[in-house]
Amino acid sequence: MDEEELQRREISDAHRQELNRGSVVLASLLALRNPGYGYALLETLDKAGIPVAGNTLYPLLRRLESQGLLTSEWDTTESRPRKFYRTSRDGELLARSLLAEWRRLGAAIDSLDTTEGTQS
Amino acid sequence: MDEEELQRREISDAHRQELNRGSVVLASLLALRNPGYGYALLETLDKAGIPVAGNTLYPLLRRLESQGLLTSEWDTTESRPRKFYRTSRDGELLARSLLAEWRRLGAAIDSLDTTEGTQS
Repeated sequence: MDEEELQRREISDAHRQELNRGSVVLASLLALRNPGYGYALLETLDKAGIPVAGNTLYPLLRRLESQGLLTSEWDTTESRPRKFYRTSRDGELLARSLLAEWRRLGAAIDSLDTTEGTQS
Repeated sequence: MDEEELQRREISDAHRQELNRGSVVLASLLALRNPGYGYALLETLDKAGIPVAGNTLYPLLRRLESQGLLTSEWDTTESRPRKFYRTSRDGELLARSLLAEWRRLGAAIDSLDTTEGTQS
C-alpha cells in the first residue's frame, strides 16, 4: 500500500469511528435495559454490529453511571465479584430521546442522499 | 429549574451533540455533491434537520478540503469573492462508505431496541 493510499484509509477510518462513537452510548443504554456485565455488553454490541473496544466501553460505562444514566450492583455469588449495570430511569429517558434524534438524523441524511440540484 | 435538573439537561445535550457530530460530515459530503457556499450548506443542513453552527461547519469544510474530500473554487463574479465547495471523488467514496455504515448502525440500534431479555 503506498503512502497516499495509507493516508486515505486513515482519514476514512477516523470519520467512520466518529460516526460510530455517537451510537455507542445509545446502544449501551438500550442493551442495558436488561442488566448485564461489561463483558456481556461488549458481546451484545458486537453481535448487534456495533464493535467497540473494551478499553473504550468500560470507562464509558463508569461515566454513564456517574452521570446517573446507569445503576450498578456487584454480583458476589462467584469467586470473583463482578459489577453489573442497568439502565436507570434517567437513562431510559435519554435513550428514548437519543433514539428519536437518531431517527430524525437518519431521515435528514436520507433526504440529502436523494435531493439533487436544489442547493443554490 | 433546579441545579439537578440543569445538570441533567447538560448531560443529555452533550450526548445529543455527540450523536449529531458524526452525521455532519456525512451530511456535508452528500449535500456538496451539488457545489455550494458554506452559508448555503448551513441552510441546506438546517432545512434537512441537521442544525450546525457556522463556527463548527466552516472549520470542518476546510478540514475536509485539506483531507482531499472536498474541492473548492472561488467565485469572483460578485464584489466579495466567495469560496464554493464540491464533494471530490474521494469524498464521494467516503460518503458512500459512511452511508452504508450509518444504515448498518441504524439496523443494529433497531435490533437492540426490540431485543429484550437476551443478555446474560
